[in-house]
Amino acid sequence: MTLNTALDVTYQVPRLLPHASHRVSAVAERPGGKGINVAHVLAALGHEVTATGFAGGPVGSVVRGLLAQSPGVVDGLVPCAGNTRRTVAVVDAASGDTTQFNEPGPHITAAEWSRFLARYEDLVHGARAVALCGSLPPGVPVGAYALLVRSARAAGVPVLLDTSGEALRRGVAARPEIIKPNAAELAELTGSRDPLPATRDARRRGAHAVVTSLGPAGLLAATAEGTWQATPPRPLSGNPTGAGDSAVAGLLSAVAEGLDWPARLTRAVALSAATVLAPVAGAFDPRTYEEVRGSVKVTTA
Amino acid sequence: MTLNTALDVTYQVPRLLPHASHRVSAVAERPGGKGINVAHVLAALGHEVTATGFAGGPVGSVVRGLLAQSPGVVDGLVPCAGNTRRTVAVVDAASGDTTQFNEPGPHITAAEWSRFLARYEDLVHGARAVALCGSLPPGVPVGAYALLVRSARAAGVPVLLDTSGEALRRGVAARPEIIKPNAAELAELTGSRDPLPATRDARRRGAHAVVTSLGPAGLLAATAEGTWQATPPRPLSGNPTGAGDSAVAGLLSAVAEGLDWPARLTRAVALSAATVLAPVAGAFDPRTYEEVRGSVKVTTA
Repeated sequence: MTLNTALDVTYQVPRLLPHASHRVSAVAERPGGKGINVAHVLAALGHEVTATGFAGGPVGSVVRGLLAQSPGVVDGLVPCAGNTRRTVAVVDAASGDTTQFNEPGPHITAAEWSRFLARYEDLVHGARAVALCGSLPPGVPVGAYALLVRSARAAGVPVLLDTSGEALRRGVAARPEIIKPNAAELAELTGSRDPLPATRDARRRGAHAVVTSLGPAGLLAATAEGTWQATPPRPLSGNPTGAGDSAVAGLLSAVAEGLDWPARLTRAVALSAATVLAPVAGAFDPRTYEEVRGSVKVTTA
Repeated sequence: MTLNTALDVTYQVPRLLPHASHRVSAVAERPGGKGINVAHVLAALGHEVTATGFAGGPVGSVVRGLLAQSPGVVDGLVPCAGNTRRTVAVVDAASGDTTQFNEPGPHITAAEWSRFLARYEDLVHGARAVALCGSLPPGVPVGAYALLVRSARAAGVPVLLDTSGEALRRGVAARPEIIKPNAAELAELTGSRDPLPATRDARRRGAHAVVTSLGPAGLLAATAEGTWQATPPRPLSGNPTGAGDSAVAGLLSAVAEGLDWPARLTRAVALSAATVLAPVAGAFDPRTYEEVRGSVKVTTA
């Protein structure tokens, strides 16, 4: 689930010069928002997935049109009056670096939020697992994720929460199955930059399990069954865009299949690695995934 | 007329940092492309205006929707299969500077170009004057403006051409009534950076009159009736976005009303000045226009 869906627009420019005018040499568009990315990876793994959140205005129509063309993801988006946000990623051909601009998203009314809650209730009751991903659009109450976590737990469906800031702080207290912060999000939540104590601290705040992404060093998980670090077989260089979303998809699919923690972490690390190494940003390379998942190292921490 | 219409998107950011991620604090959209800007100024001056060019895809629909809300501009756009381009202007609140990204525009097919020519013929026969503005979208023949200039001249309608590069070079040879290059476009056409000889040289290439914009120094015009420089009453500081388009609208409206060259140049300089001083980029301030046009200085050059 991505409340704040997006149209991800990518511009190629020869070289980014601040305060200059640029001819864009190539334009690409795809549906975006963390939860949409997670849904695409789950679909590629063979799962039935429904994506929900809000879509509205001309940009929302483009997002839904593109979603209709992507195999395996069912459109469960709820209409809103405002225009769905765009994100614009400007890729500099000279350096390969990306400069990112994220629109804030449409203002969601109280009536739209109520309609979303009703749709979410329906969807949760048919689901094996749910991922709640990304930022809250303007107008949605800051305690939204706490409500959505409680609702999934009441239906007996495991819920993974991947957000940041106050939305994460409030959501954790509602006791989600898993949260998956990166180092910066974890530091903001706990006040500590030391991954192992901070991951354990985050767990004491309410999450049943905390899986911290350590970037190229893999994942660190504090769970009721134990504490593990999962590491890719070799250092990876490539495009990290979407690696976190692939890790979420890996964890969620392994939870839905009833796998144990070492198997969940192995799958998440292998999918992340296959995303970093994929030629297209945000996609994962199935052959790399198959190759890497045999050699992920899981150790108790 | 703007062959390559656009949706002009403006992003406000606190500070532009290359290769960083930015939260956009405000988003604004308006229909764009030089000819659309010219049409808005003509409508604000009380003229009946029809805007033509291509519009297609979801972005084209947004442009047409916004155009339908702007009073006085009739939508004469021709549908195309490709998506109308966006321009993204990122305004840095710290410095006030703008970083601009211009998409290339949709590819126009031969059949779409033929449909446009038929529409243009119809519109030209009912017009008092025509302005041909901006770049050519991909697929449109580079000699397009020469064809459109000849067609207007055959109908006895005065035509102003405001473009650059090879499109300008080819268009000038078809003998438009007026071309309005800026200093850089004039230098590219003639090879000279000295405004007066370059303006005269450009006239010898075919245009009946050449009006060169000198930025804050006003306009320099070489015509069959004489050579003039028109200067604003005082140095202007403000946002120059749209000042050139306002000058085109001023020239075209004065031509349509049968005014002489000093009156045409006075109107163009006053409208440019009222655009630079307007609080909103690209609009002109009617009170500044009334105030400035009494004190524009026109001297023979």
